Amino acid sequence: MSIKRHEPTKIYNACVEANGFVFLAGITPKTLTKDIKGQTEEVVAEIDRLLKVGGTDKSKVVTATIWLNDIRHRDLMNEVWIAWTGGQNLPVRACVEAKLADPRMLVEIQVTAVK
Amino acid sequence: MSIKRHEPTKIYNACVEANGFVFLAGITPKTLTKDIKGQTEEVVAEIDRLLKVGGTDKSKVVTATIWLNDIRHRDLMNEVWIAWTGGQNLPVRACVEAKLADPRMLVEIQVTAVK
Amino acid sequence: MSIKRHEPTKIYNACVEANGFVFLAGITPKTLTKDIKGQTEEVVAEIDRLLKVGGTDKSKVVTATIWLNDIRHRDLMNEVWIAWTGGQNLPVRACVEAKLADPRMLVEIQVTAVK
Repeated sequence: MSIKRHEPTKIYNACVEANGFVFLAGITPKTLTKDIKGQTEEVVAEIDRLLKVGGTDKSKVVTATIWLNDIRHRDLMNEVWIAWTGGQNLPVRACVEAKLADPRMLVEIQVTAVK
Repeated sequence: MSIKRHEPTKIYNACVEANGFVFLAGITPKTLTKDIKGQTEEVVAEIDRLLKVGGTDKSKVVTATIWLNDIRHRDLMNEVWIAWTGGQNLPVRACVEAKLADPRMLVEIQVTAVK
Repeated sequence: MSIKRHEPTKIYNACVEANGFVFLAGITPKTLTKDIKGQTEEVVAEIDRLLKVGGTDKSKVVTATIWLNDIRHRDLMNEVWIAWTGGQNLPVRACVEAKLADPRMLVEIQVTAVK
């Protein structure tokens, strides 16, 4: 058993490797003035970066959970999602509405990949 | 490392196998005019079908996440859940309220099994 | 493939071991009259107990999902979280708002560890 933890904050690690999986934290956008598409673009770019930190990439993502501040943003978020995934190697997914840490955060995405 | 992906849509796969696990997407009902019990029955039937696609079955489910459009439906959903599981081989579980993709969707269930 | 299930209720097991992971159910507080800090303290104490049942401990937790009845309680919950984790061996984490099984429940935490 070995666990590798990457990019700690005070309350979580952004990326944790264990048992052949690479777990990422729920990723939120940094630029909270952007609209849903801009925020989603920031989130998937950060996910790409963190998957690389964990030694993997988006072709090996197996699960995704998406929380939207307003579920009516689902179609716009999906436009960015489809562009990002290219319709290839899609994970299982759940997408529900939830209030997030800051009321201006419109989207949070958490993925798990394998190495 | 090998990943098997089953039943792709444009945005997710319904079932993904990796590292000895079978991950299912969050499953929602198709007949949105049904009540909570009818919708939950549709969801668990679809979960049974997809677990078989992944080469496993409900006796090997290890985790479940349940989102209810209205948390007050929890007892009625649990009636169907208990009938489905038969009180045997129960997974860990979390059940919370969340708005789902369509306001008429009352329940979404996501499970992970082992093979 | 072997699955070990611990502490069954009618609807879930509190702890399930499979494929080198120890999955815990979403844990809610028992004393619903307590404030957010008191409820979170109860939850992490129960998580410690259940991790031990599964043969592991908090140093091996790899993922955590936290649901708050009111997201504005996040900072107070985090005070207890930081005291519990000691800033060491932090998992990936997602924390969102959701109504829970009882309106007096302020927090639910679900973790996954490795053995």
